[in-house]
Amino acid sequence: MRAEVLPKIVRIRDITLRDGFQNIKEWIPSETKEEVVDALVAAGVASVEATSFVSPRAIPQLADADRIARYILEKYPRVEVLALVPNMRGAQNAANAGISAVSYNISASEPHNKANINRTQAESLADLAGISGALPDLAINLSMSMVFGCPFIGKIPLDSVLQLTKEACKRGASSVTLCDTIGVANPLQVQALLEVFRAEFPELPLSLHMHDTHGMGLANIFAALQMGVTTFETAAGGLGGCPFAPGAAGNTSSEDALNMLNRMGIATGVDLPKFLEAVAVIKQKIPVPLPGRLAAARPYFEFDF
Amino acid sequence: MRAEVLPKIVRIRDITLRDGFQNIKEWIPSETKEEVVDALVAAGVASVEATSFVSPRAIPQLADADRIARYILEKYPRVEVLALVPNMRGAQNAANAGISAVSYNISASEPHNKANINRTQAESLADLAGISGALPDLAINLSMSMVFGCPFIGKIPLDSVLQLTKEACKRGASSVTLCDTIGVANPLQVQALLEVFRAEFPELPLSLHMHDTHGMGLANIFAALQMGVTTFETAAGGLGGCPFAPGAAGNTSSEDALNMLNRMGIATGVDLPKFLEAVAVIKQKIPVPLPGRLAAARPYFEFDF
Repeated sequence: MRAEVLPKIVRIRDITLRDGFQNIKEWIPSETKEEVVDALVAAGVASVEATSFVSPRAIPQLADADRIARYILEKYPRVEVLALVPNMRGAQNAANAGISAVSYNISASEPHNKANINRTQAESLADLAGISGALPDLAINLSMSMVFGCPFIGKIPLDSVLQLTKEACKRGASSVTLCDTIGVANPLQVQALLEVFRAEFPELPLSLHMHDTHGMGLANIFAALQMGVTTFETAAGGLGGCPFAPGAAGNTSSEDALNMLNRMGIATGVDLPKFLEAVAVIKQKIPVPLPGRLAAARPYFEFDF
Repeated sequence: MRAEVLPKIVRIRDITLRDGFQNIKEWIPSETKEEVVDALVAAGVASVEATSFVSPRAIPQLADADRIARYILEKYPRVEVLALVPNMRGAQNAANAGISAVSYNISASEPHNKANINRTQAESLADLAGISGALPDLAINLSMSMVFGCPFIGKIPLDSVLQLTKEACKRGASSVTLCDTIGVANPLQVQALLEVFRAEFPELPLSLHMHDTHGMGLANIFAALQMGVTTFETAAGGLGGCPFAPGAAGNTSSEDALNMLNRMGIATGVDLPKFLEAVAVIKQKIPVPLPGRLAAARPYFEFDF
């Protein structure tokens, strides 16, 4: 059931550094990434996905994972730092850098899991068990991609999502992020899925990662707020997105989400004008289009509408 | 109170031809506009704002108002055709062209009304009374701009919106469009306003016109659907918008709205793939950016998510 009152506090986990940057071809110098970190934290961002500990052959842009992770952990000990890891080696490298929480990706779609990480879901689950066994102090967040639809097979049965969550939790995942990787979810679908998911896993910490590919990012976040979700992954400028559709919008823009939350009286701990300064740093230093709306418009910070 | 079930049928009034085109500097040949009309109607669009009967000195792009209105009325007698009129002369010209329903704009903000149409709200209301007196067969829709916020004074008191509606209805308005002209409304604000507005005017036909300037267009439409609103004004490609913030997004994109409605199982009577053909005509013939999301992405029409 939808709540009549929205949450009073929401956490934005900014994923610019990982999902926002990973598909940018031109190398972003580590110093620039660190400058972006500084600007994000200066704005009050308290949770970031810092990087991915992945083969530099797979994602050259994140070859400086160790450096960026250590930079944030050492300079900003109070910021929650997650890193994406694809496998045991990545998890070990993350732990060696001092990371205490990783996101481990499994796709809700078997064909996408195979295409993306060249494994079956069963193999991914076995690897997860290995990681949690070998690194018992590492918190593992299941980042489940394609939950709301898959470019290969379309609709994902809700049972698959529930089953995969259950199996991952058995093997050491202690939280989950439900991802609309291709940005096709609609608000009713989000609410219907969350209603069942929440009933099945009432205690499991939950976050959402809704791409804005079809323009429904904020509508889906609003729908999820009505279902009590309080953590969302978003990227500055709306960077990132799906390689299947070049030119399409990427992640839901952090500043657009923060603006909607602010306007609705929901506390985020982030200073939005300062966050726009971080977007300005990105815009100045990294020559890629920023599809987010707010940064291209007059924000009207002087008015309380 | 929000309904647990959304409306089953929603009408999209496409306003590409008026709000979408009016700020485009380069002249769009009347033949091109007619081609766009043909493509929109071929997709199943059943309601359009065709043009504005306004001085060509004020809006040169709509100098062919009479031709475009007559084109649609004669070729597509079953399509609902509205035209925006700023004053008595415009209303008379619209009526002479065969138009049976006009939108008459008054701003919810007195300073914006003066800046936009060089009149007080009282003068606008007096003119409205004159129009309805002189043209009793003309249906007059009050198009109220800046309802959710004004670039000059910020917050608009809800009482002003209710009072202006009441006064306009006394003087002959028989329906109202509430406009978020600068795209700053948030979903909670939309629901709070609609709750009071609906209680005050339960029988008054109501539509919404939500710009996407800050990315909240679809979120606000979803919020309004939860309050039972069934008519929305949108523009193909997300064309149009507010001259105060160049580069910012404009109207909520018709195809993005149609896609969200389709995905939620709400009937619109519009064939979305064909609507994208209309967007393609615009893209090919009119060299302006189209900020809408769906037309830049893979739409996944092959899948029911």
